[in-house]
Amino acid sequence: MGKIYDVSMSIEPQMPVYKNKAEKRPVFEAISTHEEKGVQETRLCLDLHTGTHIDAPWHMLADGETVDSYALEDLMGPCKVVDLTGVRGVITPQDLAGQAEHGGFLLIKTKNSFSEEFQPDFVYLGADAARYLAEIGVRGVGTDALGIERAQPGHETHKILFQHRIVVIEGLRLAEVPAGSYRLVVAPLKIKGVEAAPARVFLIE
Amino acid sequence: MGKIYDVSMSIEPQMPVYKNKAEKRPVFEAISTHEEKGVQETRLCLDLHTGTHIDAPWHMLADGETVDSYALEDLMGPCKVVDLTGVRGVITPQDLAGQAEHGGFLLIKTKNSFSEEFQPDFVYLGADAARYLAEIGVRGVGTDALGIERAQPGHETHKILFQHRIVVIEGLRLAEVPAGSYRLVVAPLKIKGVEAAPARVFLIE
Repeated sequence: MGKIYDVSMSIEPQMPVYKNKAEKRPVFEAISTHEEKGVQETRLCLDLHTGTHIDAPWHMLADGETVDSYALEDLMGPCKVVDLTGVRGVITPQDLAGQAEHGGFLLIKTKNSFSEEFQPDFVYLGADAARYLAEIGVRGVGTDALGIERAQPGHETHKILFQHRIVVIEGLRLAEVPAGSYRLVVAPLKIKGVEAAPARVFLIE
Repeated sequence: MGKIYDVSMSIEPQMPVYKNKAEKRPVFEAISTHEEKGVQETRLCLDLHTGTHIDAPWHMLADGETVDSYALEDLMGPCKVVDLTGVRGVITPQDLAGQAEHGGFLLIKTKNSFSEEFQPDFVYLGADAARYLAEIGVRGVGTDALGIERAQPGHETHKILFQHRIVVIEGLRLAEVPAGSYRLVVAPLKIKGVEAAPARVFLIE
């Protein structure tokens, strides 16, 4: 097996969260400690969109499927990492031209990967670019921002992707990954009946 | 790639939890709904030992390493699934004779895999069997019980495994998996500074 790139964000109290909202931070509680009971045990409260995660259609579509509708086979396969670190603001179809492949995953590496802080002006996928990816028929698209779009009215980018059953992966860490072709594995927690799941995600060279 | 067996437990409100303790159940909270805000968003509180998960040495050793000390490369590799569905009570070295391989993972399929309820008399790994696996030098051991041991005094089984840096995987679902040789992938959430992490785990034929 080739080199493995772990492209997952570390979940910890001071990690970046969407818009830096305090209520979106993970909260750790030690329910047993070595000092008191000789065993360490932790309870964690987290928004399902914390760190690296996948969104399911129900996140934005009232009649959309939940995250358990994805089998593991839907979440692994050939993948291209594209370098869009020069892009500011919105990603357009022109930025993606010739990069995406039918049936494959596309991970978008932007300047977001080079900051450990939440970026209010994060680079995001425009609705036109989402339509372009749907036309090509990609299996999934991933971003190193905490959101695939940036508060566009009506959440158009999300909805276009979900309507075409394109897997949406958010919160990737791609700073160390050269642009190129890989095999992608997305391993979300197996959670029933919800709109998203935190995931461990890695690329195999 | 061969057939994939998802051996992870589904995380949901009524899932089995250790000793059926109410405080160990996952709690789901809808912090935004389609009806009220047009977007679904969930917060989840869960014990890190919920469902399928890995334990790190700090769980039982006061000076032990935390779960982020495992790289992904430590958590995947050749694996044998052994059928111990005939065993009741404690698993002994005799039950494992000839099954484990140096540097490989061993997953133990017992009667636990055939119940969706917590089993107070679940089949567990005895301290002698843990010592046997340490001698062989397995990389990791997994069980379809929620615990690798059953309240033995001093948590001897856990401690032997951790002292030999053997990865401990608990809460597997193996009912559908024939005994045999596979490639194992354990993908825990990347959580910093804690004693365990829930994981998506699968076998490749």
